[in-house]
Amino acid sequence: MAYTILDTSNLEAYLFSLPQIKSFFNTDALLINEIGDGNLNFVFLVTSADDASKQLILKQAVPYLRCVGESYPLSKERMTYEIRSMERFSELSPHIPKIYHFDEEMSMIIMEYLGEHIIMRKGMIDGVKYPKFAEHISSFLAETLFKTSSLYLSSSEKRELTAQFIGNSELCKLTEDFVFTAPFMEHETNAELPELSDEAERITKDLELKTKILQLKHKFINRCDALIHGDLHTGSIMINEEETYVIDSEFAFVGPMGFDVGALIANLAMSWVSHTVLDETSDYADWILRTIEEVWQKFEKKFLQLWDETKESALFAKGFADTQIRKAYQEEYMLALLRESIGFAGCKIIRRQFGIAGVDDIRGIEDAQKREAANRLAIKIGERFIKEHNILNNINNAMTLIKA
Amino acid sequence: MAYTILDTSNLEAYLFSLPQIKSFFNTDALLINEIGDGNLNFVFLVTSADDASKQLILKQAVPYLRCVGESYPLSKERMTYEIRSMERFSELSPHIPKIYHFDEEMSMIIMEYLGEHIIMRKGMIDGVKYPKFAEHISSFLAETLFKTSSLYLSSSEKRELTAQFIGNSELCKLTEDFVFTAPFMEHETNAELPELSDEAERITKDLELKTKILQLKHKFINRCDALIHGDLHTGSIMINEEETYVIDSEFAFVGPMGFDVGALIANLAMSWVSHTVLDETSDYADWILRTIEEVWQKFEKKFLQLWDETKESALFAKGFADTQIRKAYQEEYMLALLRESIGFAGCKIIRRQFGIAGVDDIRGIEDAQKREAANRLAIKIGERFIKEHNILNNINNAMTLIKA
Repeated sequence: MAYTILDTSNLEAYLFSLPQIKSFFNTDALLINEIGDGNLNFVFLVTSADDASKQLILKQAVPYLRCVGESYPLSKERMTYEIRSMERFSELSPHIPKIYHFDEEMSMIIMEYLGEHIIMRKGMIDGVKYPKFAEHISSFLAETLFKTSSLYLSSSEKRELTAQFIGNSELCKLTEDFVFTAPFMEHETNAELPELSDEAERITKDLELKTKILQLKHKFINRCDALIHGDLHTGSIMINEEETYVIDSEFAFVGPMGFDVGALIANLAMSWVSHTVLDETSDYADWILRTIEEVWQKFEKKFLQLWDETKESALFAKGFADTQIRKAYQEEYMLALLRESIGFAGCKIIRRQFGIAGVDDIRGIEDAQKREAANRLAIKIGERFIKEHNILNNINNAMTLIKA
Repeated sequence: MAYTILDTSNLEAYLFSLPQIKSFFNTDALLINEIGDGNLNFVFLVTSADDASKQLILKQAVPYLRCVGESYPLSKERMTYEIRSMERFSELSPHIPKIYHFDEEMSMIIMEYLGEHIIMRKGMIDGVKYPKFAEHISSFLAETLFKTSSLYLSSSEKRELTAQFIGNSELCKLTEDFVFTAPFMEHETNAELPELSDEAERITKDLELKTKILQLKHKFINRCDALIHGDLHTGSIMINEEETYVIDSEFAFVGPMGFDVGALIANLAMSWVSHTVLDETSDYADWILRTIEEVWQKFEKKFLQLWDETKESALFAKGFADTQIRKAYQEEYMLALLRESIGFAGCKIIRRQFGIAGVDDIRGIEDAQKREAANRLAIKIGERFIKEHNILNNINNAMTLIKA
């Protein structure tokens, strides 16, 4: 169907025009609520008027940045990449909500409503522990990253996959600007934070830090390792104690693996900062540290297991490497991936302090002194992550940088 | 026009159907000679029957690998990438023959005949010095690599360029197989060289060498730095003492810059090996060494000059880095590029010893003992290039590896 902006006035008619959706609800009347609180899209929760248990989510992109308005145009085709990545991820991992319908022309996707899950960031702010999270997210990362890489796909499959996402230029540019650039210089989009002006000034001039950020930005632009989610923070995860789902993959493209692993580590680390500043004795902070470590350890183990099971790929021709050579290369590969993940995590942490988009874990701290303390601690961790990522030897080294 | 294989029976009629070609020749009769000696395509030299000075080259891809025949299918769409890259390179550098006409559907390009130039490899085998070569090729490399990279283009221009070449999967796969894989293992496509079987066996089992080859192959597959020629050896260069032209860019794609620089260094180094083995006192060998050094030095200087003139790019937002930060990053960047170029050069040298495609400089040595000595010397250089590329600090270190 040709692109039409959906709203509460036309949404019911549209949904009833889709046979599989009509039969899902099996009713004559729908309750419709706009519940989106993200920066980009409109999100509707649709409920059967007859049966409150029948609910679906409809997400549509509009041709501008929602949080700014029509004055900030952003092509609605970004939804194409969310649709394509959700489809691909669904084939590889159970940690993706069920998709009921999508329409690239309408820039629209209809999916399972996760009514018993909450945004992980909110749960973490409330100090809720998720005992299965490390297990789930490490599986998601290992399965999606490994199986969309040249370690698994054939040469032509890898290039076809890259081609499917190469058009997601606008959202890649947002990351280039807002993760790797603006927060590290004087820029009109940065948050107004006079209390951090000494830190901002110092960072803007730090030669070592900025050359390392350029190295990481160069990797982001010039590497095509695997299909990455592209925005895998705790706000893109729906969770409860039993289940974990990854959502909001409109930033997906074939890029550096470490960007997803790093996004996750960065956001867990910022939650740790928040809890540490708010309550030094908090055992929740310890749970977060253990979780970061476990996420990496389990991810590494699963990734290597998938690799060991793979007989042939673009990189590994049959018979090219014996077990010893493969193991040696794997060891180097995983260390490089850990290092780059920590580097990306550092950029993500610092950008959340100075940039346009903060995280509620820290910007939401009401006590101004504690908020500032959290900002400063996060900046320190981010800085060490960036400066020292290339000399880390294992995840424990990274943990030390957080706890120091 | 729909795809038709051109041959001496239908070529004249086809050429006369193209108005600009008809008017170029301004005659009723053409002399047509098939002169292709490459592995992939048919190449015709077309001459006006009335005026021998009016000559053009027509190159057409057929849907199989020419040197094997119809039993080795290879999509004729590869010519699309040669056409696109020739067009792009023409905009950036004068070292590309003039293009008169092309037709993507016909997988065909008509271009200037370089009657006063010869294939550089042949000239080098004959010991001809080309005093302007380093100047010319360093300009070609600097202009084409810099201006198709994220150091010059905007984020969206860079991704659009990448998209234009991402379909060149088949030829990328040929490189993956024949440069990075088959020559380093037992493989049916390798040359039968019983006299080198000890070296072949040793290399096949060398853990350090093979993990480094995997690193380099991973870069080839997963990096998209700039539009590269993809096969820039001395057989892809037409030259005389005054002029230098780059041809045969069907392997072009957006890949690692060092692959082009490395291809060139590898092929110059193999010519050095050949002349050194054939005549120890040869001053031609010294000219080659000086040329390798000059190519790198001039390339580096020109690349940095273009960079200094560039105010803004995908990587460098306006105002992000002051001069000091830019200079520090440039230094790291050029060192990494030199290292990776030498690494790629090492793979290219060794593959030319064991692989299906040798180079005439070495395989053409008639004396079997000298040929074997050249093979062994080339293998030694290639091996050190691969193993030590990551610890080189400047081009002199690389020169030492050749001369040692």
